[in-house]
Amino acid sequence: MNSLINRQVRLRSRPSGIPQAEHFEIVEGSVGTPGPGQVLVRNLWLSVEPAMRGWVNAVGNYAEPVAVGAVMRSFACGRVVASNDPAWPVGVAVTGLFGWQDFALVEGAAIQRRIEDDGLPMSSALGVMGINGVTAHYGLLQLGQPRAGETVVVSTAAGAVGSCVGQIARLQGCRTVGIAGGRVKRALCAERFGFDVAVDYKAVDFEEHLARACSGGVDVYYDNTAGAISDAVMAHLNVGARIVICGTASVANWDPPPRGPRVERHLLTKRARMQGFVIFDHPEYASVARVDLAKWLRDGSLRYIEEVLDGIEKAPDAIAGLYRGENLGKRLIRLVPD
Amino acid sequence: MNSLINRQVRLRSRPSGIPQAEHFEIVEGSVGTPGPGQVLVRNLWLSVEPAMRGWVNAVGNYAEPVAVGAVMRSFACGRVVASNDPAWPVGVAVTGLFGWQDFALVEGAAIQRRIEDDGLPMSSALGVMGINGVTAHYGLLQLGQPRAGETVVVSTAAGAVGSCVGQIARLQGCRTVGIAGGRVKRALCAERFGFDVAVDYKAVDFEEHLARACSGGVDVYYDNTAGAISDAVMAHLNVGARIVICGTASVANWDPPPRGPRVERHLLTKRARMQGFVIFDHPEYASVARVDLAKWLRDGSLRYIEEVLDGIEKAPDAIAGLYRGENLGKRLIRLVPD
Repeated sequence: MNSLINRQVRLRSRPSGIPQAEHFEIVEGSVGTPGPGQVLVRNLWLSVEPAMRGWVNAVGNYAEPVAVGAVMRSFACGRVVASNDPAWPVGVAVTGLFGWQDFALVEGAAIQRRIEDDGLPMSSALGVMGINGVTAHYGLLQLGQPRAGETVVVSTAAGAVGSCVGQIARLQGCRTVGIAGGRVKRALCAERFGFDVAVDYKAVDFEEHLARACSGGVDVYYDNTAGAISDAVMAHLNVGARIVICGTASVANWDPPPRGPRVERHLLTKRARMQGFVIFDHPEYASVARVDLAKWLRDGSLRYIEEVLDGIEKAPDAIAGLYRGENLGKRLIRLVPD
Repeated sequence: MNSLINRQVRLRSRPSGIPQAEHFEIVEGSVGTPGPGQVLVRNLWLSVEPAMRGWVNAVGNYAEPVAVGAVMRSFACGRVVASNDPAWPVGVAVTGLFGWQDFALVEGAAIQRRIEDDGLPMSSALGVMGINGVTAHYGLLQLGQPRAGETVVVSTAAGAVGSCVGQIARLQGCRTVGIAGGRVKRALCAERFGFDVAVDYKAVDFEEHLARACSGGVDVYYDNTAGAISDAVMAHLNVGARIVICGTASVANWDPPPRGPRVERHLLTKRARMQGFVIFDHPEYASVARVDLAKWLRDGSLRYIEEVLDGIEKAPDAIAGLYRGENLGKRLIRLVPD
């Protein structure tokens, strides 16, 4: 094992906003040998998330930032190739926070779960069956609490979380309005993800389109963007609306927070609730959500898209690319070609 | 009865912000005679509420605005002086939305409740045992959900709602921080209403005082002001904080809403909840809350202050006076001197 090379994507310097390629460096090192209780995982897929922006920023976040010089924190999945923990024998497929690297030497307790050989692609463990699907399920159903017949609006509706939110809302009998950027993503929302209406926020008449799409008002707004897109949605809240704050993709820098229309009176007069959440607070929820998600995937009522970048050298620019809106679907780094 | 004169305070013109004296006029008319099912109430006390600002504004509110030319909507209490509804015999004390006038001719169904002769002053039905106390009880306990040991911050803490919120929070075992304007109100908060710390938002070092008062963070913020005071409190939110939006007293005009720091990322990283409410949505709650409120009043653990203005001619300027911050405690108009 020790003759193998482990490429690692490390944080080179701390960005103040969205991490760019130059904030990372790829360093080659040797592959370690598992000590007592340790497991060596050969990563096959690395995840790229909008949330990674927060993981490397120093201020205003929910997790200890990745240290400069450390391997970039990341979900990944792969196979155990050496093990000193009988719970995780060689050959099993696993997922966890293994970092942006070829090989991860981890404690057995750090492995999030075993990926069952259940017919779903291994990579889905990082997206629809992983953090994205679980986030969509929790935020929509536990906080948004949609009822059949209500209108649910989702921003970044073609994205890995947003597309899942829209489809779950539809499965609850809701009317769904997706907001996405550009004609391709808008078409994806309508045609592939089954939104009742899809609206392009880059169109010059976005606000008129949104107003028409929300003529009956908005009962649940699942917000992945914040900013001007949210301001436009907020104008259409129904009494008793629930706003779920899942992400803030449209705002590059929150230090200090940008200014926008104050929401206090609007929340008061609409008796509305605005609530932020972080899925890492609810680790016990994932297994609950995955029962539903797997069922919906198998019966064809839940679809997803993956965008695969080949090779670890694509990783450093991959987060910035999400914020440029260039991806379609869940962005993944594939380390070993099929 | 018909020889009596009924003075009515009517809305003369519609204000765009805070209603001033010139937006009202006092008109004298005759007193009506109850038709079938009707009741004539001699008002003895009229209420003055910050919420009345919203009741006369045309936009962005939760209730049909008072029509220009109509009697100003208001809670009041008094005695039945003529009745065609056996449920409300002559002589009983009642409260309801009887309007700013000497006599109210109402349907029996429009009477909110009978005021029991239970040793509490009749006027308390408009304040601590009425909309203010019930609003404080509902907003704090149902939405703020404070737990013993948590820190609860209240704005307009010397006011009719805020003082009640602080005392109820203390009864739940919370640490309480009151924000009020000026030295007199600040002293009232600390000495009469038992806040653990009281902070004067008009002091030049308000933000430093608040930071010291909230060094352990804020778990519940009961917001009656919005605006800059809220911005200062928001900076100290703990993870899992609950912000209850009850009023927006510090902002004169919401059309269009003023701009302030965006809250989305802060709500996300703090997993915080911000929720507006209107007590009129929960009519069934009043009788629940009043059981607690009466008990606390009788055992001395809940105190309140009334500020009495004598004569209906004080009514037109009374709302503007609240927003000038000139009142101490629940503002009432007394129509018949003791």
